[in-house]
Amino acid sequence: MNLSRGKTYFKTAGVTASALLFSLNAYAAHPNLVITNDDVQQMRQAISTNSESKFATAFELLKTQVDEQIALPITVPVPKDGGGGYTHERHKKNYQLMYNAGVIYQLSKDEKYANYVRDMLLAYAELYPTLDVHPKRKVKSQNPGKLFWQSLNEAMWLVYTIQAYDLIHNSLSAKNIKTIEDDLLRPISLFMSEGQPSTFNKVHNHGTWATAGVGMAGYVLDEPEWVEKSLFDLKKSGKGGFVKQLEMLFSPQGYYNEGPYYQRFALLPFVTFAKAIENNEPEREIFQYRDGILLKAIDTTIQLSYNGLFFPINDAIKSKGIDTIELVQGVTAAYGLTNDAGYLDIAKKQDQIILSGDGLKVAQALDKNMQKPYKFKSVAFGDGNDGKQGALVVMRSDVGGDQALLFKPAAQGLGHGHFDKLTWQFYDKGNEIVSDYGAARFLNVEAKYGGRYLPENETYAKHTVAHNTVVVDETTHFNANVEVGNNNYPTLNYFETNKYGTVSSGEISTAYKGVNLERTLALVNLPELDSTITVDIFNVDATKAHKFDLPLHYKGQLIDTSFKLAGNTQQLSALGDKNGYQHLWLKAQATPKEGLAKVTWLNDNGRFYTQTSLVKGDESFLFTQIGANDPHFNLRNENGFIRRVNKAKQHKFISILEPHGEYNPSKEYTLEANSRVTSLKYTEQGSLLLVEVDIKNNTYLVAINKSDTVTKNTFTYQNKAFTLNGRLGVYMMKNNQE
Amino acid sequence: MNLSRGKTYFKTAGVTASALLFSLNAYAAHPNLVITNDDVQQMRQAISTNSESKFATAFELLKTQVDEQIALPITVPVPKDGGGGYTHERHKKNYQLMYNAGVIYQLSKDEKYANYVRDMLLAYAELYPTLDVHPKRKVKSQNPGKLFWQSLNEAMWLVYTIQAYDLIHNSLSAKNIKTIEDDLLRPISLFMSEGQPSTFNKVHNHGTWATAGVGMAGYVLDEPEWVEKSLFDLKKSGKGGFVKQLEMLFSPQGYYNEGPYYQRFALLPFVTFAKAIENNEPEREIFQYRDGILLKAIDTTIQLSYNGLFFPINDAIKSKGIDTIELVQGVTAAYGLTNDAGYLDIAKKQDQIILSGDGLKVAQALDKNMQKPYKFKSVAFGDGNDGKQGALVVMRSDVGGDQALLFKPAAQGLGHGHFDKLTWQFYDKGNEIVSDYGAARFLNVEAKYGGRYLPENETYAKHTVAHNTVVVDETTHFNANVEVGNNNYPTLNYFETNKYGTVSSGEISTAYKGVNLERTLALVNLPELDSTITVDIFNVDATKAHKFDLPLHYKGQLIDTSFKLAGNTQQLSALGDKNGYQHLWLKAQATPKEGLAKVTWLNDNGRFYTQTSLVKGDESFLFTQIGANDPHFNLRNENGFIRRVNKAKQHKFISILEPHGEYNPSKEYTLEANSRVTSLKYTEQGSLLLVEVDIKNNTYLVAINKSDTVTKNTFTYQNKAFTLNGRLGVYMMKNNQE
Repeated sequence: MNLSRGKTYFKTAGVTASALLFSLNAYAAHPNLVITNDDVQQMRQAISTNSESKFATAFELLKTQVDEQIALPITVPVPKDGGGGYTHERHKKNYQLMYNAGVIYQLSKDEKYANYVRDMLLAYAELYPTLDVHPKRKVKSQNPGKLFWQSLNEAMWLVYTIQAYDLIHNSLSAKNIKTIEDDLLRPISLFMSEGQPSTFNKVHNHGTWATAGVGMAGYVLDEPEWVEKSLFDLKKSGKGGFVKQLEMLFSPQGYYNEGPYYQRFALLPFVTFAKAIENNEPEREIFQYRDGILLKAIDTTIQLSYNGLFFPINDAIKSKGIDTIELVQGVTAAYGLTNDAGYLDIAKKQDQIILSGDGLKVAQALDKNMQKPYKFKSVAFGDGNDGKQGALVVMRSDVGGDQALLFKPAAQGLGHGHFDKLTWQFYDKGNEIVSDYGAARFLNVEAKYGGRYLPENETYAKHTVAHNTVVVDETTHFNANVEVGNNNYPTLNYFETNKYGTVSSGEISTAYKGVNLERTLALVNLPELDSTITVDIFNVDATKAHKFDLPLHYKGQLIDTSFKLAGNTQQLSALGDKNGYQHLWLKAQATPKEGLAKVTWLNDNGRFYTQTSLVKGDESFLFTQIGANDPHFNLRNENGFIRRVNKAKQHKFISILEPHGEYNPSKEYTLEANSRVTSLKYTEQGSLLLVEVDIKNNTYLVAINKSDTVTKNTFTYQNKAFTLNGRLGVYMMKNNQE
Repeated sequence: MNLSRGKTYFKTAGVTASALLFSLNAYAAHPNLVITNDDVQQMRQAISTNSESKFATAFELLKTQVDEQIALPITVPVPKDGGGGYTHERHKKNYQLMYNAGVIYQLSKDEKYANYVRDMLLAYAELYPTLDVHPKRKVKSQNPGKLFWQSLNEAMWLVYTIQAYDLIHNSLSAKNIKTIEDDLLRPISLFMSEGQPSTFNKVHNHGTWATAGVGMAGYVLDEPEWVEKSLFDLKKSGKGGFVKQLEMLFSPQGYYNEGPYYQRFALLPFVTFAKAIENNEPEREIFQYRDGILLKAIDTTIQLSYNGLFFPINDAIKSKGIDTIELVQGVTAAYGLTNDAGYLDIAKKQDQIILSGDGLKVAQALDKNMQKPYKFKSVAFGDGNDGKQGALVVMRSDVGGDQALLFKPAAQGLGHGHFDKLTWQFYDKGNEIVSDYGAARFLNVEAKYGGRYLPENETYAKHTVAHNTVVVDETTHFNANVEVGNNNYPTLNYFETNKYGTVSSGEISTAYKGVNLERTLALVNLPELDSTITVDIFNVDATKAHKFDLPLHYKGQLIDTSFKLAGNTQQLSALGDKNGYQHLWLKAQATPKEGLAKVTWLNDNGRFYTQTSLVKGDESFLFTQIGANDPHFNLRNENGFIRRVNKAKQHKFISILEPHGEYNPSKEYTLEANSRVTSLKYTEQGSLLLVEVDIKNNTYLVAINKSDTVTKNTFTYQNKAFTLNGRLGVYMMKNNQE
């Protein structure tokens, strides 16, 4: 090896890549991508030593699956179908199968697995030169593949297949190597790079898959130029390629701006290619790049989950969680990098062992029960590559149970983003309490619009009213224009977490013309009551009079309201005719008098939740159920209520969310079914927001400092002196023990 | 002891009790009710031997709870409040606490526990003589108590308190014994017996509590006459009392006709008093009475559950299940009686150890992991004390997962019964698939109608349309008259379970005048497909033309229909104005053409379910959601569809229910989302019902014999000869492997 690079190359972005070009004469022996020869020796030993171990069990399981599949004839059909169709699914299965069989070959040393992969590769080598671009290609939206309708799938095929080839390389004859490389791997690598510069050079997840595939092919086929181009774009300019993607696609905190559902998917090619780079050229220190951005990205994906499921922002399928294979790979790599026993806690929950060197480390550590509790934290994850395009804020508390609050003063998140600036979600005792619809989609269910995103994803789920944030004049943020959304984002005003809880504020003036939306949320600990409350202050300021709606989508059964409801009991009508309102039935309404307006519901987790709003008599409460204009029953019939103010230039929506009590019909008891909040007052003193709340005969004062300059406030409230250090303070003004 | 009874006395009902009167001079030493002196010795030993054992752990847990409570002052308030009120709840807590403290006294030998019970008993002895009947008594419906508004609670107080007294008796001075017995236990026992003959003599659950309390007091206070009266009524006539209750309140199979939710509640005084009888007078062989009816009653309660929850027929709270304390007591007793390791399986799931002699046996067996799988069976539980008032039928299969089908050609089940003759429910993969609403009630939630049964229990949940059975002319079975319902019941035509599955048929001609309802249900195993299907043939025969509705309440999201739906997308109206119809929104409708009409839904368990109906073009399908005329959001918004035929004298509703496929959005795959049934034919040949179904390219013939006389049928179908032995046969006519 003749490597003349500076060790710190990757640590600094912006260096001209071509200046550092060098020649690589030979990479290490095969295999040497994610799995190395060393790994193989250790894995073989582990399997032979203890057949009861987690690793050996995982090996046997995969071997059994592979055995079943390789007993069937090899099928490499002429590409014909689009996504979900037969040839599409068959080629997907084939690359997974080749990879798995390659791994089993290395671990078992049984030639039959290598021969199976060889024969399939030869079949592909025979087919590939005969192919033109795919007949079902999407003309406008994406470069086409040849085996697949879109180049994304073709790149995924290459990522798996090049690893499979690497794994069986040593078993192949020179003749077969030549055939497979010349007729299949070289042409497809060139097609994925030179053949589609717009995707290959693109700083986008599709580009990551392409550069990962081609870069790894460079290592295996001894083409250092391919590696360079994968890292720095086809011109090696550094304006595109894998390194630029690492720089641009994550925020400094490791947040990927489409949200966690997409982040875990995006992770896989990053982790895979980085591991291959590390194994072939450790001096590139790829995992140290950008202060360890890849590890941050993995860790952030875990942090963006609650009770094992990802926070379902944007077009997310709600049942996706930390046990997805992409994050299993990510956590395995993270443990390999750090030996942090917290990752073992997650790995244990994932309950899947990867057959790789890092996977072996994880399996052996779990066999020894070395896991320690993974720490979920309260964090503001900056959005955008500079971390300054707003933030996705997570607040957590374990006072009275494991709770999480998600606050979203975050950027649009591209085409899968929802128009939900400053929305929030709340979780308690394992369940959603204040919820987000997620994506309107039944994944792969043919009867539901072919398993694609349902039309209701556009007509309902993306709209502002489907979220828990302010809608102005029944129109959607940015008028539902994605491009405008991508170009504008909220400001994270502040975020702080301390012993009193966590507070954050964000605002945006571009969601609607002439309207500023500013929300402050605090998850406040009340240890005396073994409880939290959430304080929500949503300030809307407009230059002209508007209608302001603030929906709250709750999960559970409505138990009570502190005001009389006028129910639409004989007939229901849709609440509006567009922007998502057409999908809401109006079930009941009320205009509570000045004072406290309470809505209590019971969640499936057996706890009650009350939102107490401080109203002046100008807010109407509209109780809704999703399901209008839904002739195919595509939507879930979930409940919510909308607080509405008409013809206002300014309005503050002020409320408290309070978990309380327990409903236990099995043991036949019910505790604290009624809200304990008896009084709620809101005042401001200069830069201080002051919330006084009487709850269970205690009187608390919650003080929030919105000033960026003053870090210590002394103030007087009801003739008492207080000192607030930082952003958030909670003071007991009267104790029920007194 | 001078006992001159025949050992087999209880085995034969109807013997005149007074003929067997005898004198009991002294019962065994204290304690000797459920817990005996022998038990105590063994329990003490177990606790001292191994502090890690399940029994010792349960002891420590209860001791900690008792310690917390006895640290507080004794409170014996003057009775004032009705059910749920402060004094009511306080007196309930007191008796539980006295019992627990008594147990801890015996096990710990620490006098402080006995003294606490003593002091509370003395406080009661001071209060009780001053009391008149309770101020909140219900004048019409039930005898009053003095401590409680109704005598049921007073009897429960006595059942617990007499045991507590027995447990601490040896620690008391003669003076205190006299005070407690003369001023409290004797007067309350007399008040519960001579003082309220109508309850004490009643063959009803309230009578069981009263006789159990007074009978046990008889043992403890050495009053053999009280025992005799408890067993055979105040006149010792045998027309009432505990023995008559055992004879009348359970069917020969041990089914209690209010359903399992009430059965588990009713069990407790039976099991408690029986155990006390067994310990004091084993020669009565109370557990052998009526061929072991008590054990059958316990076992039946377990059998009437699925995935840990009771089948929610009648006014049932749906989250009640096998872990309720009454059934923990029952299972503990059942294991004590039988040493059947299947009961340990249930005890393990219950995860609660009773501090008694039997509880020790259970705990020690569980410590040794002696449990074996409890066998859930397909059974027709005869209803009524003769077992001939219809039956509650349970069908089970484990082909393709643990499934249960409940069929209800059962009697009304008194005031808590629902008007749902011949209804059914279906369960698969742990979940409800075809569901029953259960009771409309939020137990003890004050905001929901004081926690009592909601008005909607009468206006919706009890009505026929809330169930999965035929409604004629939008009216309810028996015109919703409980008395008429109690006096009429369906006939169980037949029930058989064999290797092909389970079949049952029932009918009733009294639910509607001039209309005969006859339903045949079969849960059929198709092992080749690793699946079951349910065959449903509902035959309605009337003397005049009527409207017939057959609802099906499904749990899940509608995925598809094989026919075009006309949705009410802009506006919803209630389907009717009475008999439960006023609570159903009509969401969509259709009248499918002759042939197969399919409705597919997706359950939360990730499986698809399709009902395929064989229609002639005369059935309309009305898709409904519960929630109309529900201004307080008291009802759960569940979905269903109603098959409707207008102006018909005769109609056969024929359908197949088929579980299929899997929806796994987490792993991103969806399998068999479409029904596999491609053809369905129904014919009759004499007494044979023949269903031919094409499913996944297999053709099956399901043959059901409804003749009571012919047990072997040979018949020809499509030129092939078949032989059917018994009621149910399944024949593969064409195999997709052919």
